[in-house]
Amino acid sequence: MTDCQADGSGNMTAMDLYESLTSQGELVRTLKTEKAVKADIDAAVKLLLKLKADYKQVTGQDYKAGCPPLESTVLEDTGPAAAVDGEDMVDPWNVSTTSAKGVDYDKLIVRFGSSKVDQELVDRIERVSGKKPHRFLRRGIFFSHRDMHQVLDAYEKNKSFYLYTGRGPSSEAMHVGHLIPFIFTKWLQDTFDIPLVIQLTDDEKYLWKDLSLEDCHRYAVENAKDIIACGFDVNKTFIFSDLDYMGASPDFYRNVVKIQKHVTFNQVKGIFGFGDSDCIGKIAFPAIQAAPSFSNSFPQIFKGRKDIQCLIPCAIDQDPYFRMTRDVAPRIGYPKPALLHSTFFPALQGAQTKMSASDANSSIFLTDTPKQIKNKVNKHAFSGGKDTIEEHRKYGGNPDVDVSFMYLTFFLEDDEQLDKIRQDYASGALLTGELKKRLIDTLQPMITAHQERRKQVTEEMVLKFMTPRPLDFNF
Amino acid sequence: MTDCQADGSGNMTAMDLYESLTSQGELVRTLKTEKAVKADIDAAVKLLLKLKADYKQVTGQDYKAGCPPLESTVLEDTGPAAAVDGEDMVDPWNVSTTSAKGVDYDKLIVRFGSSKVDQELVDRIERVSGKKPHRFLRRGIFFSHRDMHQVLDAYEKNKSFYLYTGRGPSSEAMHVGHLIPFIFTKWLQDTFDIPLVIQLTDDEKYLWKDLSLEDCHRYAVENAKDIIACGFDVNKTFIFSDLDYMGASPDFYRNVVKIQKHVTFNQVKGIFGFGDSDCIGKIAFPAIQAAPSFSNSFPQIFKGRKDIQCLIPCAIDQDPYFRMTRDVAPRIGYPKPALLHSTFFPALQGAQTKMSASDANSSIFLTDTPKQIKNKVNKHAFSGGKDTIEEHRKYGGNPDVDVSFMYLTFFLEDDEQLDKIRQDYASGALLTGELKKRLIDTLQPMITAHQERRKQVTEEMVLKFMTPRPLDFNF
Repeated sequence: MTDCQADGSGNMTAMDLYESLTSQGELVRTLKTEKAVKADIDAAVKLLLKLKADYKQVTGQDYKAGCPPLESTVLEDTGPAAAVDGEDMVDPWNVSTTSAKGVDYDKLIVRFGSSKVDQELVDRIERVSGKKPHRFLRRGIFFSHRDMHQVLDAYEKNKSFYLYTGRGPSSEAMHVGHLIPFIFTKWLQDTFDIPLVIQLTDDEKYLWKDLSLEDCHRYAVENAKDIIACGFDVNKTFIFSDLDYMGASPDFYRNVVKIQKHVTFNQVKGIFGFGDSDCIGKIAFPAIQAAPSFSNSFPQIFKGRKDIQCLIPCAIDQDPYFRMTRDVAPRIGYPKPALLHSTFFPALQGAQTKMSASDANSSIFLTDTPKQIKNKVNKHAFSGGKDTIEEHRKYGGNPDVDVSFMYLTFFLEDDEQLDKIRQDYASGALLTGELKKRLIDTLQPMITAHQERRKQVTEEMVLKFMTPRPLDFNF
Repeated sequence: MTDCQADGSGNMTAMDLYESLTSQGELVRTLKTEKAVKADIDAAVKLLLKLKADYKQVTGQDYKAGCPPLESTVLEDTGPAAAVDGEDMVDPWNVSTTSAKGVDYDKLIVRFGSSKVDQELVDRIERVSGKKPHRFLRRGIFFSHRDMHQVLDAYEKNKSFYLYTGRGPSSEAMHVGHLIPFIFTKWLQDTFDIPLVIQLTDDEKYLWKDLSLEDCHRYAVENAKDIIACGFDVNKTFIFSDLDYMGASPDFYRNVVKIQKHVTFNQVKGIFGFGDSDCIGKIAFPAIQAAPSFSNSFPQIFKGRKDIQCLIPCAIDQDPYFRMTRDVAPRIGYPKPALLHSTFFPALQGAQTKMSASDANSSIFLTDTPKQIKNKVNKHAFSGGKDTIEEHRKYGGNPDVDVSFMYLTFFLEDDEQLDKIRQDYASGALLTGELKKRLIDTLQPMITAHQERRKQVTEEMVLKFMTPRPLDFNF
């Protein structure tokens, strides 16, 4: 495998070898071009071949000029966001698929080089935590991971870890899909009783969108209210805007610079598809999303310790940032963050279309009224039902492409009920209108309760959550 | 003229037009490749031609794909740090020349597109300030400028400005050459009674050199002591380490992000010669050196005002950073900084060799003893004298290549004495040993006095200079 740490051979990492190889290759070319003495060329070629052999040993791969080694090798082979014939396209800014069932997540695990959250891992989480696994784990919504077993091994030996998740505040409006990582992160925090940091990347949104700094920061604060309304414990949670925290924490900036020193433009080009006409802010930004993965970015919480492992629950499209982070971590003396990846939350119009904050009908927003929820689900939720009641009764519907059923897998807690709905819909016993009603009955009280909790979030509470301060943990 | 602000045509800046042109060019290519309808192609080509005409009107130049418009056009034509046959090479990391007289500064003014500090400007500074111009101005050591007349126009109308200079702390050891910008900046501050900010780019040194963050920060603090020993007024001067101030000022980071959004990789590639294998920290760094050029990066000093113009005294090799800054400024609503550029301080071994902090004999260090100074000058200062006393008496020496004479132009205050030394040396009346003695007699008391002032710099004074705080000015 291609972990960037060498096991033995001369203590050179894959990246060291890659860089030596690149310059040695250039030397050989120069010598040949300049028709140097044969003995010199031979010696240079010999060293080149030795470096290539070492590289293969360390990375399990052949050296390829212009392709620096990364934790996940498959991505480089196919290029960033590459949709190899018929494959899905997934990067932090684009997700697309041609299948009505949505992205093929098993293929994505292979392409990204992560591990499947299998029944064994779910059982182990139950055993270690003593709690029933969250429905997102039971139903494969958090379907992929990196190093979860390592986190659990350490936890069993009373070694703590912390959680890090985030959101890019591109508008005031958040929809139910945006809650997925926060709902799950809250469960993880309650289950393991550990600190949580939440990054609001208002700087990223400024760099990528046609928005002012002031608007991005305002969205960050507004989004923080919706996040707080998920029920996080203020004594265990730190929420921060990059625009504020970068200018409030010399330790955070020091980690950003450390990461920026150890990632080349070639690498971010390969990982994120950046080009020469991208602004330098975009090119440097991945280091800012990486920095919260290291505990000494938060000295007020971890007392300057740099060895507390981080677990990042996030949607799979954010994985490129953390592949890069995991590649850099050992080179700057920090533990690699572990990850738990979720599937994407589908748009109402179907799993192959994109949710858009500017299209109010593409999802259920956290500000929607019960009536709006009812209308949206009835009008816009893509149905897996047949064209006529008669046909539906006869052939049954297809829950795998039905968005109402997909939403219920996210939000209906009761496994038996969900299973019965699936069977009844597939058999034709349950009609599309009835299925939609089940979803409406699930979403309406959920959104109303969220709105009530959000109303109770005061400016003072937001300020407290967003103030760098010690949390209720001893490190 | 290539000023990036358009004067009239549709309020589009040169950069706006450049970006429109680039995408329009791509559109035309796509249409042609896909054999689109002729009318569509014609319309697209027509718009392309119109944009090209506008671009030429605004920039005075033809549009060239891949070459974004910059304030100084000459640099792009020749490429970064380009040493066109026999020309000098000057960028922030390399200065080289083949002439014993040093770099040809008149050519550099043309290449960089700056203006000469002529007698008229020197006289005007004297008139406006009511003080005798500093010897660095009288002798053409600060030889080039941008917008100094604008600064003086405003000053005559009681509109204040502020000074910004800096240093890259790559080691504890500073030599006399490093003092040039600080000696001159102190004179400017005393003369115009204005605020001064001094940036210590410890983050830059970490990114460029094989040094730890801790060492770079320590060098910054040590260098601050030598800077303070130049006699700056703590009530009018703020000295900051990037590693500290970036993490202590959200307003500074906001300006960094604003700049980073408005500069592309293509541009820093053109200006600084960065390549794909450079780390993303280097690529993003120019924004950090640019940010102090804008007064609202220091809200504690300027009460949040963004309209106070900045004057930057610096060596000419730093100009690329500020060409970029001046290009960005109007696009983010800030005034362009003005500049005063100095020549390079020559190495003892001659103006075409490089001073090196690792070669103790390449310059006079601020820690040298009187004996070391005497030995270094006598042993290592490149001489413009003849081989024998007889020849020297007969033909005279060459002060233009004599390093002792060059150093005296920097440090001997009396114009008449300096002129007499030049004449006597050129005529042969003054021998090389006598010239060297004049330099030794000038340097020894100067360095001893510096060392005494530095001894009196306490940790408390350093802390005060480096604490963000209001200065004795009302804005």
